[in-house]
Amino acid sequence: MAQGIDVSHEAGIGVITLTDARRRNPLSTETMSAVTTALHEFGSMADVRVIVIRALGPAFSAGHDLSELVDRTLDDERAVFAACTDMMSAVHSARQPVIAEVAGFAFAAGCQLVATCDLAVAARSARFSTPGVKIGLFCSTPMVALSRAIGRKRAMKMLLTGDAIDAATAADWGLVNDVVDDDALRSAVTDLAQKVAASSAMTVAIGKQAFYQQIDESETDAYALMQETMATNALTCDAQEGISAFLDKRDPVWTDS
Amino acid sequence: MAQGIDVSHEAGIGVITLTDARRRNPLSTETMSAVTTALHEFGSMADVRVIVIRALGPAFSAGHDLSELVDRTLDDERAVFAACTDMMSAVHSARQPVIAEVAGFAFAAGCQLVATCDLAVAARSARFSTPGVKIGLFCSTPMVALSRAIGRKRAMKMLLTGDAIDAATAADWGLVNDVVDDDALRSAVTDLAQKVAASSAMTVAIGKQAFYQQIDESETDAYALMQETMATNALTCDAQEGISAFLDKRDPVWTDS
Amino acid sequence: MAQGIDVSHEAGIGVITLTDARRRNPLSTETMSAVTTALHEFGSMADVRVIVIRALGPAFSAGHDLSELVDRTLDDERAVFAACTDMMSAVHSARQPVIAEVAGFAFAAGCQLVATCDLAVAARSARFSTPGVKIGLFCSTPMVALSRAIGRKRAMKMLLTGDAIDAATAADWGLVNDVVDDDALRSAVTDLAQKVAASSAMTVAIGKQAFYQQIDESETDAYALMQETMATNALTCDAQEGISAFLDKRDPVWTDS
Repeated sequence: MAQGIDVSHEAGIGVITLTDARRRNPLSTETMSAVTTALHEFGSMADVRVIVIRALGPAFSAGHDLSELVDRTLDDERAVFAACTDMMSAVHSARQPVIAEVAGFAFAAGCQLVATCDLAVAARSARFSTPGVKIGLFCSTPMVALSRAIGRKRAMKMLLTGDAIDAATAADWGLVNDVVDDDALRSAVTDLAQKVAASSAMTVAIGKQAFYQQIDESETDAYALMQETMATNALTCDAQEGISAFLDKRDPVWTDS
Repeated sequence: MAQGIDVSHEAGIGVITLTDARRRNPLSTETMSAVTTALHEFGSMADVRVIVIRALGPAFSAGHDLSELVDRTLDDERAVFAACTDMMSAVHSARQPVIAEVAGFAFAAGCQLVATCDLAVAARSARFSTPGVKIGLFCSTPMVALSRAIGRKRAMKMLLTGDAIDAATAADWGLVNDVVDDDALRSAVTDLAQKVAASSAMTVAIGKQAFYQQIDESETDAYALMQETMATNALTCDAQEGISAFLDKRDPVWTDS
Repeated sequence: MAQGIDVSHEAGIGVITLTDARRRNPLSTETMSAVTTALHEFGSMADVRVIVIRALGPAFSAGHDLSELVDRTLDDERAVFAACTDMMSAVHSARQPVIAEVAGFAFAAGCQLVATCDLAVAARSARFSTPGVKIGLFCSTPMVALSRAIGRKRAMKMLLTGDAIDAATAADWGLVNDVVDDDALRSAVTDLAQKVAASSAMTVAIGKQAFYQQIDESETDAYALMQETMATNALTCDAQEGISAFLDKRDPVWTDS
């Protein structure tokens, strides 16, 4: 718990819980490294088919631990943001889809983490902001994920004003997938996780990796990559089983289920 | 009809109709090649100013012909997805704008085709999904077009769950332009096609080609390309006629109208 | 006023006003150059913390001065579009955020200017279009900014039909940030400008420059750039002051305020 996280898994769902509720789950270097490690470790657990990141208390995360950013050297500062990028990168490189379960507010790097997760479900009372500008430290790394999630003008307004948006707006802008009543959040995330976990883990892993492989490429290059991905995916035993089961109107049996 | 399509043109509008209603218009290799050929042939018909892709029966298209994907070699699989990319590429490289007229469901490569068309109008009962994950074959090539149309989180949810979205959601997310009552679909598409057809075909062709030329470039490179495109477009007879007509408050007469 | 603009600044807010209301504020080469110059000059004024572009009369801008585009040489045409790109580029490279205050219609290059500004607020009666296709001159340079603001299908429809969208649609699609009643436009823009101006001008400048530096990069490259930007930003006096003030629960005092 010194790292500020708790890691567990049950019934195919890996869970990373931010546990420093009292301090609003700051993403200290130690916490970020612990999340990165947990994501990597889930990668080698065949029975973990989807990952959920949630948090204790009224906040998802208030962002970086600001005490780590005062009176430091440039190398100290670099280490903080390198650890942050490592965590975001680990979310994308994880074999399993990662779902953010957002109760309360997600600010700065907390907002970035939501934007980075493959999927996100928010409680109706959740709020999102990139308020760094108000304390002299522009949310430049959060904006990488934010601007790619919600587009230019909306990202610019959040970044330049530091104003928070509510959960409905976040869903409208594509920052989160769904908004549910606060007391339905856990069950909504579990439902979504179970739906993802019901598919072939091999297929999901192929697809998730392919998504990030193609998203920054030109359309032509993306198709060149994805044609080959689909052709080889089609030859996997799970695809052959899945297509055959569909044509036979029966349920498929995945190799790893 | 062995190819599963019918091709016709009338009053400036080229129409490609998917005709295998009984099998829900599968995009077999033969059908995709036929669509590609039809798009190329329309390219040389000066009197075709816009193209519509529609389908017979309750489905727009259920996607690939799955029977082509079982018990095949890698080269067989590659040939299927190469034919698919060729068709999508032909939609973008066609001189004329291509409008998808979507009644019923558009799944997998069918959804990809809608995402790829320059414009799309959907009947209110239309539905869209990328359900490959459910049969072990992730919709990796559809996701190229889908993720570029609706953004990351929304594409990820469709891809990872296989869940369908309705027409209103598709419009809200930018996958289609308009949703109309089912019995108004044909007339809405015809109105849109006629509006596009009323402009100079030369200008429309310049603009459509320019759109795809710039969309994947950095903003700086895009402007460098488009400045030159506009400067040369401005010297065409249709632009000189169009601008002069506007300044004279009269209707323009296009060279090819 | 021969240039068609008026430039002023007060209370930290620089204002560029398009003044040729009678001709609907055409963006002639002279006017575009004057806007570019004004943006550059604001760059050296330490007391200007945010810039507003507004217009007199019922139109924001009808776009290029069409009389400059008839009976010209290719080099003449090139000069017009080069001046246009220079202006758009100057909006992005300006140290201060640039807010478009849009009353009335913004067409063609006028629509492009709104799409290019960092932020935009529209009066409810404002309208937006890229109608070049109707006069034989496709809005190819406007589409660079438009397609990046509102996405492919929506941009394609505006470009291929020339149809205008209303302010509510522009906000829904992310072309503008906010829509307000016509008589509340000026105060809404002033409120937004003052909010931006309240932050450290150094931080805002770092953040705005960083935004455009990262937006066209792959996510990996964007993070590499932004990690370093945040690390160096964190060492600035305003960040150290801002973070310390936050931790001490007091208001920060910026070096340049």
